[in-house]
Amino acid sequence: MGTTGFEQHCRRTLADIQAQGRYRRFTALARDGVRYPHYDRASGSGPRDIVVWSSNDYLGMGVDPDVVEAGIAALRDHGAGAGGTRNIAGTSPLHDALEAELAALHGKEAALLFVSGYVSNQASLQTILTSMPGWICFSDEKNHASMIAGIKGAANGRPGAARCVIFAHNDLADLEAKLAAAPADAPKMIAFESVYSMDGDIADIGAICRLAKRYGAITYLDEVHAVGLYGATGGGVSERDGVAGEVDLIEGTLAKGFGCHGGYVAASAAIIDFLRSTASGFIFTTSLPPAVVAAALASVRAVRAQNHRREHLFERVAALRARLDAAGVPHLPTPSHIVPIPVGDAERVAEISRRLLDEFGIYATPINYPTVPRGQERLRLTPGPRHSDAMMDALVAALSELMAEASPARRQRDDVEAA
Amino acid sequence: MGTTGFEQHCRRTLADIQAQGRYRRFTALARDGVRYPHYDRASGSGPRDIVVWSSNDYLGMGVDPDVVEAGIAALRDHGAGAGGTRNIAGTSPLHDALEAELAALHGKEAALLFVSGYVSNQASLQTILTSMPGWICFSDEKNHASMIAGIKGAANGRPGAARCVIFAHNDLADLEAKLAAAPADAPKMIAFESVYSMDGDIADIGAICRLAKRYGAITYLDEVHAVGLYGATGGGVSERDGVAGEVDLIEGTLAKGFGCHGGYVAASAAIIDFLRSTASGFIFTTSLPPAVVAAALASVRAVRAQNHRREHLFERVAALRARLDAAGVPHLPTPSHIVPIPVGDAERVAEISRRLLDEFGIYATPINYPTVPRGQERLRLTPGPRHSDAMMDALVAALSELMAEASPARRQRDDVEAA
Repeated sequence: MGTTGFEQHCRRTLADIQAQGRYRRFTALARDGVRYPHYDRASGSGPRDIVVWSSNDYLGMGVDPDVVEAGIAALRDHGAGAGGTRNIAGTSPLHDALEAELAALHGKEAALLFVSGYVSNQASLQTILTSMPGWICFSDEKNHASMIAGIKGAANGRPGAARCVIFAHNDLADLEAKLAAAPADAPKMIAFESVYSMDGDIADIGAICRLAKRYGAITYLDEVHAVGLYGATGGGVSERDGVAGEVDLIEGTLAKGFGCHGGYVAASAAIIDFLRSTASGFIFTTSLPPAVVAAALASVRAVRAQNHRREHLFERVAALRARLDAAGVPHLPTPSHIVPIPVGDAERVAEISRRLLDEFGIYATPINYPTVPRGQERLRLTPGPRHSDAMMDALVAALSELMAEASPARRQRDDVEAA
Repeated sequence: MGTTGFEQHCRRTLADIQAQGRYRRFTALARDGVRYPHYDRASGSGPRDIVVWSSNDYLGMGVDPDVVEAGIAALRDHGAGAGGTRNIAGTSPLHDALEAELAALHGKEAALLFVSGYVSNQASLQTILTSMPGWICFSDEKNHASMIAGIKGAANGRPGAARCVIFAHNDLADLEAKLAAAPADAPKMIAFESVYSMDGDIADIGAICRLAKRYGAITYLDEVHAVGLYGATGGGVSERDGVAGEVDLIEGTLAKGFGCHGGYVAASAAIIDFLRSTASGFIFTTSLPPAVVAAALASVRAVRAQNHRREHLFERVAALRARLDAAGVPHLPTPSHIVPIPVGDAERVAEISRRLLDEFGIYATPINYPTVPRGQERLRLTPGPRHSDAMMDALVAALSELMAEASPARRQRDDVEAA
């Protein structure tokens, strides 16, 4: 069929996505390194000065002066790129120091850096689940795409390949029933997250670890939306709940609570050395730039030491929730810092997001399929220490107005049908 | 089996790797941002001031003052991290500008950034090869691990899944025989590299594209070891050979010839929009930090405009080869900038590399399995514009001495056997 046939397939797929109202147009926004959460909107109609409510730089560490200066110093001292894989001149003392810091953050013997949180999940899960025949991975149904990519990469249906058993979201009874039904001697893993980023709910890590022990499973915990934010030193929900020692592998990111870039896994020395020595997605890739590593190291150290950042974040989250309640704007109650505003329709959520931007200078990303199931489209708000009361008032007023209105697109359709 | 069983498996695997002499210890080296290729060796015995011969920052762009200053300005202006995925506030005007620059570099309609070259290959290949049932991917046997990861991720043996047909390295007759044997109506792809980084040989891109047209296949070309270095504007071997227009997808990296970080694919607008809209490894990951993107943009612009950098590189490559020949140090003849020194034994290559470092202050990474097949262990040298004549003389003198000696480890074994 050749080039033409494949191009046609691409165009058909894109037309389908557009017909479903979930075609994504990226909004180019330049973050203001001083005035964050202000961003500059480079093009398009409407206001240029935008307040963003959807960044995952939850604590604003990406614009912290110490973090920025650490990055600048490393850029000057060591240049822009790492120049090679970790084994080919791409390991600097900064990489070693950051790995030691992350191991300490989680109370583990060792940690390993990856170029992203996505890669840390995909590479670690796929490597572990192909390490021996017969692995069974018990995977929470709401696990992130990167975990699914790693698990599916191993559970490929070939003889001896891993099997993936999906359990109902945060449902311990379903998990236990499925663990009990599996062969006792098979190698088993429970893979789950602490804070689920789209719903904002939190797993009972301790209870899952107890089940793991009872049924002989190892535990793999994704804490990407929790590291920096939960626990006395930002070690995540596993630190807050005092169960980090029960988890075999804790995966995290430097790109959200720590405001930088890259991902990692922390675990025992043997597990980390095993991943370091065998994971294709770790071995065959240029290591993170020294400047990224230096900025992340400064950020992790600051976040570990300074509890006031976490306190300020949660005060702001409570303040936003109170305002939404007072204004009668629906939002999903969550035990985390994530505030989802349910909309439930791909076109309507896109329209509300667009009008927030064009008419109010507010950016809240529309979340649609495949990030959430169809019918659960939403805006996802992530209030942080730098969102002022005035910003909140402006957001809530705009949301009140837009959420109360029927969608013009829908109105138009209704008009046509009524005509 | 639980945690203990898995830990034991990890230890056994690591012991096996050690017994094979291919256990990797990373050497922590801090690049000198001014004196590159000088690095500072933070720990260990022997000299601290090290000249590195194995970096993939081929042109030294990572320490170019304009590149570094562009990164610093963006760090100050926009902070350390992107704060979100491309769809969630993680697209800046810099990202759009770099994608436009890369599309222009390759004469394509569009380009798409990924967090690494590894991810660009894995995500693009897996996404395309799962886009329709029955794909057949004709894959050069020496393709990089990241391409294999993407192809294998699609070719998982399930009904309707892609099939992978491996052809002999750069062997057009074998490729054509395999294309001719495949069903005429199946969607087909030929996936290959231009410069193969461990052997330094170069594919006949034009001939492969002609076969692709004849048999109705699309072409996917990895140019990571060529972009910046080959062609009048650094567009790679496909530009040099005047065949970039014949290739459907050109994949490249910002981490080697451009000295920064990240990967990309350039292709038609429809193909790029298809990948942008459907590739999990693109969608669900924090985008590259603005500072990384700004540095890369400065680098690509400079490298496109300045042919003297490429001329200087190849003059240095020829100078090193001449010195190796004069000294009788074996090296594989290659048509590229890569100079492999064959050793052929995992322990011996590790020992030569260690002695170069400890006794001579020279770093050349030992390359062993799984990066190359067992028995083809080597040192891989990448001379660049910043390697002086004096550095070359020192390298060749050290190599002459070490290569001439039998391995002490081997001598010791011989002694024991003789005893």
